[in-house]
Amino acid sequence: MDNSIVGVIMAGGSGERFWPISRRMRPKQLLYLTSEKEMMLEEAVNRLLPLIPKEQIFIATGAHLLESVRKSITNIPPENILGEPAQRNTAGCLAFAVAHILARFGEAAKDMLMSVVTADHLIGDADRFRDSMSAALRFSQEENALLTIGVQPTRPETGYGYIEITNLNQPLSDFQGIPIYNVNRFLEKPSLEDAEIYQASRFYYWNSGMFFWRISTMLNGFKKHMPDHAQGIEGLSELIKTNPGAEDEISNLFDSLPSISIDYGLMEKADNVYVALGDFRWDDVGSWDSLCRFLPRDEKRNASVGDPVMIDCKNIMVYNEPGVDKMAICVIGMENVLVVTSEDGVLVCPKDRAQDVRKAVAEMKKRNLGQL
Amino acid sequence: MDNSIVGVIMAGGSGERFWPISRRMRPKQLLYLTSEKEMMLEEAVNRLLPLIPKEQIFIATGAHLLESVRKSITNIPPENILGEPAQRNTAGCLAFAVAHILARFGEAAKDMLMSVVTADHLIGDADRFRDSMSAALRFSQEENALLTIGVQPTRPETGYGYIEITNLNQPLSDFQGIPIYNVNRFLEKPSLEDAEIYQASRFYYWNSGMFFWRISTMLNGFKKHMPDHAQGIEGLSELIKTNPGAEDEISNLFDSLPSISIDYGLMEKADNVYVALGDFRWDDVGSWDSLCRFLPRDEKRNASVGDPVMIDCKNIMVYNEPGVDKMAICVIGMENVLVVTSEDGVLVCPKDRAQDVRKAVAEMKKRNLGQL
Repeated sequence: MDNSIVGVIMAGGSGERFWPISRRMRPKQLLYLTSEKEMMLEEAVNRLLPLIPKEQIFIATGAHLLESVRKSITNIPPENILGEPAQRNTAGCLAFAVAHILARFGEAAKDMLMSVVTADHLIGDADRFRDSMSAALRFSQEENALLTIGVQPTRPETGYGYIEITNLNQPLSDFQGIPIYNVNRFLEKPSLEDAEIYQASRFYYWNSGMFFWRISTMLNGFKKHMPDHAQGIEGLSELIKTNPGAEDEISNLFDSLPSISIDYGLMEKADNVYVALGDFRWDDVGSWDSLCRFLPRDEKRNASVGDPVMIDCKNIMVYNEPGVDKMAICVIGMENVLVVTSEDGVLVCPKDRAQDVRKAVAEMKKRNLGQL
Repeated sequence: MDNSIVGVIMAGGSGERFWPISRRMRPKQLLYLTSEKEMMLEEAVNRLLPLIPKEQIFIATGAHLLESVRKSITNIPPENILGEPAQRNTAGCLAFAVAHILARFGEAAKDMLMSVVTADHLIGDADRFRDSMSAALRFSQEENALLTIGVQPTRPETGYGYIEITNLNQPLSDFQGIPIYNVNRFLEKPSLEDAEIYQASRFYYWNSGMFFWRISTMLNGFKKHMPDHAQGIEGLSELIKTNPGAEDEISNLFDSLPSISIDYGLMEKADNVYVALGDFRWDDVGSWDSLCRFLPRDEKRNASVGDPVMIDCKNIMVYNEPGVDKMAICVIGMENVLVVTSEDGVLVCPKDRAQDVRKAVAEMKKRNLGQL
C-alpha cells in the first residue's frame, strides 16, 4: 500500500454492445460478465485495493450512472465516485478526475503517482497486473515519463489499437521482470492484413488503454499538448474546492472541453511516452462474440451460461442471464450463432455479426422500446 | 340449427410441438395460434354453433385439462366438456364421448347424426366447412354411411395421411357443390416421393381427421370391427347414467380399452366409408414451421408476430408470444430459422428442424425443468 498513489477507474461506457443484458442504466462495467461473483467494475476496484488506499481510488462514470455505481461499489468512499456531466472522451474524463484530486489533496497531489485503469476489460492475473503497474509507476516517477501498458497479442485483432516499440532487445528497465520500452508510435485499429503483420512481429503490442504517471508530469503534458484541458483542470479544481455545489458552473466548464481521447491528445504527441509490457491475460471483451473466448466449451465447441438445452449444435454460444433462472432456452441444429436472453430481451445472430447489436439497439431506440 | 345433430370436438392433444408457447397444461388447442382473438378450441366450438344447439356440442379432452377447458369455453354447458381419464387414442376418445351422449339422450341418441371434428386444425372458410359438414351428414343419413372429409392437397406433404378415391368423374352426391366419393383406401403419411405422386393426381386428398355418421351406424361399425369398444361403450354409458360418481369404475373400464385410432380400427375396415371433398383451406398446423404458412411475410419472406427487430434476415419466422409484450426480440443476419419466445422460454432452430422441438422437450423433462 502506497500513500503516494491515486487510482482512477474510467467507467463511463454506455450499454449497447451487450444488449439485452446491458442497458443504458446498466452498462457493461456493471455486469457479471467475466466473473459470476463480481461486476467488472467491482473487479477493477478490487484489483487496485492491495496497492492503493481506498480513499485514493476514484471512479469516473456518467452522471446518470452515479447512483447505481455508488450502490454497487461500497468499498471506496461514495464521494470518490464522480459523475461526469457529459461525455468528453477519455481526456475529458481524466481532466475531470484530476480536477477533483487536486481539489481534494491540494498542491501535494502534483507529486502523487496516478494509475488510470479501465472498468470493463478482462484482466487474467491480478497479481501480475499489479507488478506491471508497480513497474510502470516506478519508471514514470524516476523518468518523468508517461507510461502505458502493452499486452502480448494472442491473435490478429482488428478491434484493438496497437503500440509499436523500438528497443526490443534493450529494455530501459526490468523491474520485477516487466520490461519497459520506447514507444515508436501508436497504431489505430488495423486492417486484418496489418493485424497479421503485427502478429508476426515482436515489435507490436495491444494498447490496453491504461496510463501511469506522476500527476505533475501529466499536467505538464496537458499544458504543452492540450492547453484547453490544462486550463479546464485549473478552473474545475478551483470551482470544486471553493464551491462544490456550483453544479451548473462545473457542468458548463466541463461541457466546453473538446471531446478527445487521451491517446490522441497526449500520448501520441508527447516525447516522454513509454510502454511497460504486461504479461497477464487481457481482453477488452468488446462484444458477445469476444465473451466466447472466456467461456469453457464442450466437445462440439459450444459455450454456454445458464444451462440451455443444445441439440445438434456446433460452435454456438448461449448466454442465459445468470440469476434469471425462470427462462428455459432450447437451441436445435444451429452453428456459429449467439443466443443471448435476459428477463426482457432476446438476441439471435451469427457470431461474426455480434458487433451489429448496436444496429438493433438503434432500431429499438427508433421504435421507442422500453428494453434499452 | 338442427336438433338431430350432436358435435364432438376431439381436444386431447398434448403440449409438446409448440413449446415454449404450449405446455402440458396449455396445449395447442388452448393457444391463439391461428387467430389473435380466439383459442383454436374456441374457433372449433364457434364453427359448430350455427349448425348444432350448444347443449349438443361436446368436447373430449384430457382429465388434467378439464378445469382449464371449462374456464376457457363458456358458451357450451360445462357438463358437456368431458375429461378422458387416460389417453386411448381417437377410438377411445369417441367411445367415451358416445357413451356420454347415450347416457344423456338415451335410445333417441342412436338416431342422431354426429359430427366429429378436431380442436387444433386451421379451417379457412367456416361457412364452406359447414356446407361440407351438412353434405356429409346428409349423405351419412341417407346411405347409412361413415363419412370423412378430404381436402385438396396444396403441396406434397409427408406429415399428413391421404385418402385415395375411385369414382372421380361420378360423384355419388353433389349437395351444395360438395362431391362425395367412394374411398378406395386410406394411406399413411407418405414418403416425399409418394407425396409427389399423390400431388400430381386428382385421386388423392388429405385426410382431415373429421368424421360424420348416424350414431347407430357408428355403433354397428364398432360392433363389427371393434367389439371391445362396442362393449366398452355399453358399459360406460350404463355406468355414467346410473352412477355418474363412480369415477374409479368408469376410469377402470375406460383404461381397459385398447389404444387404437378410429381410422385404423373402423374407417379402414368398414365397407360403407365415403369421403366428402371440402373446398375450404385446411391445415393441421402441426409445428412452428407450418405456422409460417399462415403468417404474412415481408419482402424478404420474413414472418413475425409480436414486432421483433429483424436486421438482414431472410425467410425467418419470429414468434414473440402475443400479450407478453415485455420481451424485446432482435434477430440479426439469420436465414431460414425459427425464433419463438414466451415469458419463460426461448426456442431457436432451423425451420426444417421444427419437429425436433419434441427432442428438446424430452431433454427438459429429463432435467426436470419447470417450463414444460
